[in-house]
Amino acid sequence: MCKTYVLSVPAAKAPFEKTIIERRALRPYDVSIAIKFSGICHSDIHSAHGDWAGGIFPMVPGHEITGIVTEVGEKVSKFAVGDRVGVGCYVDSCGECEYCFRGEEQYCSKGHVATYNSLDYDGNPTYGGYSQKIVVTERFVVHIPDPMELDVASPLLCAGITTYSPLKRWNAGPGKRVAILGMGGLGHVAIQFARAMGAEVTVLSRAGDKKQEALGFGADEYFSTLDPDTFKKLAGRFDLILNTVSAAIEVDLYLSLLRVDGTLVNVGAPAEPSQYQVFSIIMSRRSIAGSLVGGLPETQEMLDFAAEHGIVPQIEVIRADQVDEAYDRILRSDVRYRFVIDISTL
Amino acid sequence: MCKTYVLSVPAAKAPFEKTIIERRALRPYDVSIAIKFSGICHSDIHSAHGDWAGGIFPMVPGHEITGIVTEVGEKVSKFAVGDRVGVGCYVDSCGECEYCFRGEEQYCSKGHVATYNSLDYDGNPTYGGYSQKIVVTERFVVHIPDPMELDVASPLLCAGITTYSPLKRWNAGPGKRVAILGMGGLGHVAIQFARAMGAEVTVLSRAGDKKQEALGFGADEYFSTLDPDTFKKLAGRFDLILNTVSAAIEVDLYLSLLRVDGTLVNVGAPAEPSQYQVFSIIMSRRSIAGSLVGGLPETQEMLDFAAEHGIVPQIEVIRADQVDEAYDRILRSDVRYRFVIDISTL
Repeated sequence: MCKTYVLSVPAAKAPFEKTIIERRALRPYDVSIAIKFSGICHSDIHSAHGDWAGGIFPMVPGHEITGIVTEVGEKVSKFAVGDRVGVGCYVDSCGECEYCFRGEEQYCSKGHVATYNSLDYDGNPTYGGYSQKIVVTERFVVHIPDPMELDVASPLLCAGITTYSPLKRWNAGPGKRVAILGMGGLGHVAIQFARAMGAEVTVLSRAGDKKQEALGFGADEYFSTLDPDTFKKLAGRFDLILNTVSAAIEVDLYLSLLRVDGTLVNVGAPAEPSQYQVFSIIMSRRSIAGSLVGGLPETQEMLDFAAEHGIVPQIEVIRADQVDEAYDRILRSDVRYRFVIDISTL
Repeated sequence: MCKTYVLSVPAAKAPFEKTIIERRALRPYDVSIAIKFSGICHSDIHSAHGDWAGGIFPMVPGHEITGIVTEVGEKVSKFAVGDRVGVGCYVDSCGECEYCFRGEEQYCSKGHVATYNSLDYDGNPTYGGYSQKIVVTERFVVHIPDPMELDVASPLLCAGITTYSPLKRWNAGPGKRVAILGMGGLGHVAIQFARAMGAEVTVLSRAGDKKQEALGFGADEYFSTLDPDTFKKLAGRFDLILNTVSAAIEVDLYLSLLRVDGTLVNVGAPAEPSQYQVFSIIMSRRSIAGSLVGGLPETQEMLDFAAEHGIVPQIEVIRADQVDEAYDRILRSDVRYRFVIDISTL
């Protein structure tokens, strides 16, 4: 066992406190990581605020983790002390089901163990990346490619893979018209991935003033969803809409922007139910789909792809004592585009 | 022009009357058909009752039409007098868009012309199959394969293609677990298609007493949706659920029966909106999709497939003066499984 400082919330909506937890003693396949940076995902806020059922408190959020390997178990083969590594949204899976076998551990039949706010297979709560150290079995650790800085790499571990995986699965590429709905932490990375994959990229965002930034990220066009003309101009246009918005949307309105066989893929999960008319999907054989992060092999592939194509999240690095304020700012949409905690300030 | 007797409703929910309408004079590519049988689709009732917006009255429903060619235009090449033919849900499309080119005329960019309750491209209302004659351009006429009787063939023109097309598109076949939700006019044909394609077929139906019939149609298993245990037993089981029910369903409940990457495909369209939790699709990368009948080449393929595999709708042939009663019986679910009007009684 080893003690480590963390930022934790004792109860839903409580402010963060600096406390101490214990990480498990190193097992044969474990990697011990000195965390350098931890991104703040919108789902951290939902979890820490108890918006979703089943919150486990005290809670240490954080699943966009980058750092340096400090120790490895005797059977670890993929990592050595000093390696630059990352940990994403989950830290264990059964390893035996068809989904684990094909590297889609997020859909593990036994249920994956999330990086925080989860129980591991021994029944112990998991604690995330707002922490100086973490111990993770090597199968759930990825390499950060050499040219990539650890601070900007951090949001890729959730925001990156969450958007890369569905873009790839639903064939974003040359000849395809892709809309990215929402230009926040996920959306601004999704634009860069879709562009690098060769798709024609349109950004749909409430904000009236993000157009130049969107084009800077590689978007071909930008439309405000507050302008009703947007929905007339773009009717029947897209092969794929990647919805990165966490709030409920008017599903039928966005379905109307899809071509025949087009798909609206959701990666953000509003707490309230969504509504649609079956006619909206029948008349043009459209689909409404969802996608959950990505598997480990795909996460490594995504990092390598990002490094190769110069895809860089735009981040604001904050101190550990600024996390409460950062949460408030995220809820006011006052972030461009991802807060990353400098763990050296913890 | 030529006059023909029809069954028409003068206004929404009015009883049927025997009246006379005019069919257009034969154009070079037209086929004139003496109608022998016309199936009754649930959407006929929605249309004749004015449940959906935009009803055109007087209305002559019917889009499951079989009959004999009596005359052909000078440029008709596919049909000759005496041919046994069918006409389905639509009778024209632009012929020039990408969807028409690839034989998916139902998604025509200009909008297809429905067989009834629609305006043709000259602005004239269309009248359907509850009629002694119809004139249709040859592109929208199909051959009824030789061994197939015209009465049982009739429901295949809508119920058949509406279920065949999505089963094929979503890869019902060996190794796939397919659920057919609802065992009515569409469902009882869908079971036969899914079985013939090689899938493992489960029927989900409210009725407690249809099990033996379901197995007779080729289903492997049958579960009542009124039994809450059904949803526990079948959790995460199906690759595909084909929802043939026209009423709104509890979407999340049915999504829970899908495997990772499973799809719930809707072919019936309730008037009221449907509701789902985004979590239900995200957590297992599920999809909610819709499908609208099928194209003309696929309709011919479906008829040939049905003939080859001995797929036969179970019908009750009625007289023209029984249509109002048949509508009432359909609304009481008192039909096994499709009413077909014997047009010789009109």
